[in-house]
Amino acid sequence: MLPQIWPAILTLGWILFAIAAGEGVMALFALATQDGHAQEFGVSAAITALVAGACVLTTRGRPFDLKFRDATLLTVVAWIVVPAFAAIPLVAEPVGLSPVDAYFEMVSGITTTGATVMVGLDQTAPSVLLWRSTSQWIGGIGIIGFAIVILPFLKIGGMQLFRLEFTERSEKALPRMRSIATAIVEIYLILTAACFFVYWMLGMTPFDALNHAMTTICTAGFSTHDASFGYFDSPALEWAAILFMILGALPFMALLRMLRAGAFKERFDPQVRTFLVVLVVLVVVFSVWMLLSQTLPAGRALTKSAFNVVSIATTTGYTSANYVQWGTFAAVWFFALSFMGGCTGSTAGAIKIFRFKVMYAVVKQHIQRTIYPHAVAPIRYGDRVISDEQAGSVGVFVFLYLVSFAAIAVIMSALGMGGETSLSIAASAIGNIGPGIGDVIGPDGNFSSLPDTAKIIMCLAMIMGRLEILAVLVLFMPSFYR
Amino acid sequence: MLPQIWPAILTLGWILFAIAAGEGVMALFALATQDGHAQEFGVSAAITALVAGACVLTTRGRPFDLKFRDATLLTVVAWIVVPAFAAIPLVAEPVGLSPVDAYFEMVSGITTTGATVMVGLDQTAPSVLLWRSTSQWIGGIGIIGFAIVILPFLKIGGMQLFRLEFTERSEKALPRMRSIATAIVEIYLILTAACFFVYWMLGMTPFDALNHAMTTICTAGFSTHDASFGYFDSPALEWAAILFMILGALPFMALLRMLRAGAFKERFDPQVRTFLVVLVVLVVVFSVWMLLSQTLPAGRALTKSAFNVVSIATTTGYTSANYVQWGTFAAVWFFALSFMGGCTGSTAGAIKIFRFKVMYAVVKQHIQRTIYPHAVAPIRYGDRVISDEQAGSVGVFVFLYLVSFAAIAVIMSALGMGGETSLSIAASAIGNIGPGIGDVIGPDGNFSSLPDTAKIIMCLAMIMGRLEILAVLVLFMPSFYR
Repeated sequence: MLPQIWPAILTLGWILFAIAAGEGVMALFALATQDGHAQEFGVSAAITALVAGACVLTTRGRPFDLKFRDATLLTVVAWIVVPAFAAIPLVAEPVGLSPVDAYFEMVSGITTTGATVMVGLDQTAPSVLLWRSTSQWIGGIGIIGFAIVILPFLKIGGMQLFRLEFTERSEKALPRMRSIATAIVEIYLILTAACFFVYWMLGMTPFDALNHAMTTICTAGFSTHDASFGYFDSPALEWAAILFMILGALPFMALLRMLRAGAFKERFDPQVRTFLVVLVVLVVVFSVWMLLSQTLPAGRALTKSAFNVVSIATTTGYTSANYVQWGTFAAVWFFALSFMGGCTGSTAGAIKIFRFKVMYAVVKQHIQRTIYPHAVAPIRYGDRVISDEQAGSVGVFVFLYLVSFAAIAVIMSALGMGGETSLSIAASAIGNIGPGIGDVIGPDGNFSSLPDTAKIIMCLAMIMGRLEILAVLVLFMPSFYR
Repeated sequence: MLPQIWPAILTLGWILFAIAAGEGVMALFALATQDGHAQEFGVSAAITALVAGACVLTTRGRPFDLKFRDATLLTVVAWIVVPAFAAIPLVAEPVGLSPVDAYFEMVSGITTTGATVMVGLDQTAPSVLLWRSTSQWIGGIGIIGFAIVILPFLKIGGMQLFRLEFTERSEKALPRMRSIATAIVEIYLILTAACFFVYWMLGMTPFDALNHAMTTICTAGFSTHDASFGYFDSPALEWAAILFMILGALPFMALLRMLRAGAFKERFDPQVRTFLVVLVVLVVVFSVWMLLSQTLPAGRALTKSAFNVVSIATTTGYTSANYVQWGTFAAVWFFALSFMGGCTGSTAGAIKIFRFKVMYAVVKQHIQRTIYPHAVAPIRYGDRVISDEQAGSVGVFVFLYLVSFAAIAVIMSALGMGGETSLSIAASAIGNIGPGIGDVIGPDGNFSSLPDTAKIIMCLAMIMGRLEILAVLVLFMPSFYR
C-alpha cells in the first residue's frame, strides 16, 4: 500500500501558502522601510503562492485522510521543499546568493541550525535579516508540532515515552490535540514577546530585539550582526539570552503545565531537572577552567562561560566570544557539548538530555546485572518503568546519530576539509547547532567558503538531524512503500 | 560477600612466575648474544620470582575455589600488576627508561596495543626487543583465554553469545575447558611458527622473523625497527603479514574447528564471513581512492592500501607507509578504521565486527517496526535468535566504548594535546591499535613526547579497552563488593 500522497500534497500546499504569506509580509516591511527589497519578496510570494495554489487545487475532491505514515513522508518532504521556496528572495538580486547558498541558508533557518553563508550582516537590508529570523521562528514551531504529534507514534528514538495520554482514547483526540496546538502557539508567542521586550529594555534596537527574540526562543541562532551577541558587548543582554535560550530548550508541554496548572495531567517530566542540573555543572566547571587558564576578570569569565556553554548546549549557536582562541581544551569542550542538546518537545536539536538519562539507567542496570545475574531491577524514567523496547529505541537512535555523524565527517574529509573542520561540521550540522570549532567554521568563521557539495551534504545532515534521523531513514526502506 | 582474594593471589603468583621465567629466558638469550643486558634481566627475574613466591606461599593451605566474580577481579589486577614486573628490565640500566615510560611500554605490550615510547629500535639490544615482542605474545594468549572463558559469563558486551555449549553441563566442564585451552595454545604456537617460517623464507633475518611473527599473530604490532614494516620495503613480506594479521584476528575457536573438524560442535560463527567481506570492501575502496589521488604505481598502491588497512582494522598497528602524508581523507579513514576491530575470541581489540553485525540487525528490526508496528521479526545472529537482553548488552558496550573514547579525548585535550592528537590517542589506546594520526602519534611518530599524565591515562585506557571496559567498570561499583 503506497502512502496516500494527496493529503500530503494538500498539507504541503497550505504550508507553502504560509511561506508565501511570510514573503508577502516581508515585501510590505521592505516597502515600509524602503530597503529596496520589496520587489524580490513580492515576486517570491507570488511564485510560492502559485505553487501552493496548484497543490491545493490538484487535490480538490480527494478524500483527506492523513495517516501517520503519510505524515512522516509529508514532514520529510516539507523540510526539503519549504526551504527551496523560502530561498527565492535570497537568490533574486540585489541579495544575489547562488542557489546552493540560498538553499543552504534557508535549510539552516528552517531546521533552526543557524549556520550562515552570508557575510556582512551588519550591512544587509532589514527585510532580508527579518526573513532569515522568521524562517527559524517558523521552523521552530514546526518542529515542536512534529515532536509532539508525529514522533511519539513513530516510536522513534524513545519518543513513545512522550505519547500524550489523551491520544489513547481516540474519540477525544482531535479536539484535545487542537487545544494543545493552540496553547503551544500561544506560549511560543508569549515567550517571543517577553524575550523581545527584555532585549529591547536592555538596550537592543527594537529591530535587533525582534530578530534576536525570534531566533532565541527557537534555539536557532541567526543574528543581525556578524559578531553575533558579541556585537552588543553587554553582560545584561547575555544573561537575558541565557534565560530565554534555556526556556526555549525546555519541553513546551512542561511550560504549558506551569502556565495552566491542572489543565493537562501528564506527570512532571524528569528531563527538566536533569537538564538544569547538567547546565549548572557544565557552566561551573568551564568557569573554573576559564578562571584558571584565562586572564579575564571573574565576572566576565563567568558571563562568557555561561553564555557560550548554554548557547551550544541548547543548540542555539549564538556566540559572544571566539571560544576557539581559548585553546584546545575549550575547542574540544564545545565540540563535545554539541552532542548534548536540550529537552525533547522543544526546539533544541542534537541527542537531547532524556536520551542520556535513559542510557545512563540502561548502563547502570546492565552493570548491576553483570554483578548479580538474578537481580531484576526495571529501568525507570522518572516514576515510569521503561520497557526493553523503549530503551532499545533510545539506544538505536543514539547509535544511528553517532554513525551518521561519523559518516558525514568522513565525507567532509573526502571533500578536502581538514580533520578538525570535518568533525566539527558534522557535529554542528546534525545537531542543528550553527557554529563549530576551528578557523573555517568557528565562532568567527562562516560557511560560505565551503564547496557546494559540502553545503548540499550539510543540508541533508541538518534535515536528518532535525527530523531525528529515523524519520528520514524510513523513507529509504523499500518496505515503507509496500 | 567480598570476592575471595586468596585464589586471585595464588593465580597471580603463578602468572608472575611465568613472567619471571620469561625474564630468565631473556637473561640467557642476552648471555648467548652477548648484548650486555643479561644482568638486568637476571635481576628482574629474581625480583619477580621472589614476589611470585610470596604470593604462592601466603596462600598455602587456603582453599582454592576461584569463582567467576573473583576471576574478574583477578583479570583486572593481573593486567595492571603484570606490566609493572615486566617493566623492571626496561627501568634498569643500560635501557634506563623512566618508570612511567617502562610501565607504558609494557602495558602497551601486554594489552597488544603496540604504541611505543622507545626511539632508535634499530640500535636497541636484541634481548630488549625480544622481551617487548614476548610481552605482546603472552598478552595475546592471555586475552584469548579471558575472552573465551571469563567474558561469556560476565554477559559483557553480548559475549554471552559465545558461551560454549559444554559449559552448561558442569560435570564435564573442566576437562573440556582444559582440552580447549591446550588446543588453543597449540594453534597459537603453530600459527606463530608458520608465520616465523614464512617471514624468514621471504627475506627477514631469523631474529626479525621471530619478533614479527610473535607480534603479528597477537595483532599487536611492536617492531624491531623504527620504520616498522616499512623497513623491509618488500611487497611479498607485506602480503604475508596481511595473511597472518587476518588469521590472528579470526576467532581461535573457528580456527580450532577448521583444524579439528568435528571435535567441537559449535556452529559456524557468522562474524568470520562478515569480517572478511568488510576487509575486502575497505581495501578495494581505499585502493581506488589511492589510485585516483596518489601517484603510486597500481601494484604498490594496492599493497600499501591493503597492508595499512588490514593492520589498523585488525588493531595490529604495523605501518608500511606514513598514511598521514596521503592527506586528510586518509587520516580520517584510518581514524575511523581504528574503531572496527577483528573477530571476538581473537587477540584483536576495538569494538569488533560481531557487535556491528548485531547493531545492524537491531537497527534494521527497529526501522521495520517503525513502519509495521505489529510485525515481529526476531533479531538473528547467523541462525541464532538474539534476545533483547543480549542485543541490549551489545548496545551498552558500544555506547560505553564511545563514551570512554570521548572522555579520554577530552582529558587529553585538557592536558594540552591538539584536537586531532587527542582524538587519535583516545581511539588508538582504547582500541589497542598502536599508531594514530597527526604528527605526534602518527605512523612516523612516537609516544615518548607525551607528558607522563597522558601516558598514565593511556595505560588505563589500554587496559580498559583490552578488558572490554565493563570488566573494569564493575570494580568501581560498590555493589560488586557486597
